[in-house]
Amino acid sequence: MEPRVSIITIGVIDLDRAIAFYTAMGLEPGMVVPDDVAFFQMGGLLLALWPRAKLAEDAGIQDSKPGFSGVALAYNTRSESEVGEMLERAEQAGGRIVKPAQRAFWGGWYGYFADTEGNLWEIAHNPGFPLDAEGRISLPA
Amino acid sequence: MEPRVSIITIGVIDLDRAIAFYTAMGLEPGMVVPDDVAFFQMGGLLLALWPRAKLAEDAGIQDSKPGFSGVALAYNTRSESEVGEMLERAEQAGGRIVKPAQRAFWGGWYGYFADTEGNLWEIAHNPGFPLDAEGRISLPA
Repeated sequence: MEPRVSIITIGVIDLDRAIAFYTAMGLEPGMVVPDDVAFFQMGGLLLALWPRAKLAEDAGIQDSKPGFSGVALAYNTRSESEVGEMLERAEQAGGRIVKPAQRAFWGGWYGYFADTEGNLWEIAHNPGFPLDAEGRISLPA
Repeated sequence: MEPRVSIITIGVIDLDRAIAFYTAMGLEPGMVVPDDVAFFQMGGLLLALWPRAKLAEDAGIQDSKPGFSGVALAYNTRSESEVGEMLERAEQAGGRIVKPAQRAFWGGWYGYFADTEGNLWEIAHNPGFPLDAEGRISLPA
């Protein structure tokens, strides 16, 4: 296994609402099959929105009621002030601020929002994990 | 929001078992805090393994019993034969083959495995979504 991820697929209940949310966040759907799937190019990987029931069926597992997924995505910012701005934008886009911007136990500044499907995104400024010009994050050397 | 993801955090019940699984898959932990967290550099983003209860507490939400997370990660291969090889490797590493390698409805070759925590990984060969030399995937032009 090479150290990479190709696609993060989020299973959704309401596809149109989720597409509208991520579009309002500033992302651009690169491929949309109506009532089926939407792909967003996220640098070197793709974010896919696909009905949760289809994802479960495709994998051959039983769907269950949405609860805490046990997974969180993180978007690291270039400044502390961006954290609160992104949380507010998520709320305006139809998401929910789960944890307002605050000092993190690891020293940075952070918060969480949930998208329209309840998926967690951590928004964090962590000076210890540098971002390059393209936004690619690295562990400290 | 720039089109990128910084960290995919998988909440785990058994951290050491999960670290052993991903290491056996060929990944190298770049930073490990024993009994707390492990980070793997995955190209321009990080995969983090963190106890599920800590993730829920950090976000300020209620933990729930692990079920179908509603999220799947995908790893796209450079050939069809790699798909079955990776599923077998996942099984040898302590995971479970959820869907054996087979023809996909979208034309490629694919299958699913679950890691030691039940998280779904789709392994897929999709000639329509090209990979560059670094393994970065792109939507068709």
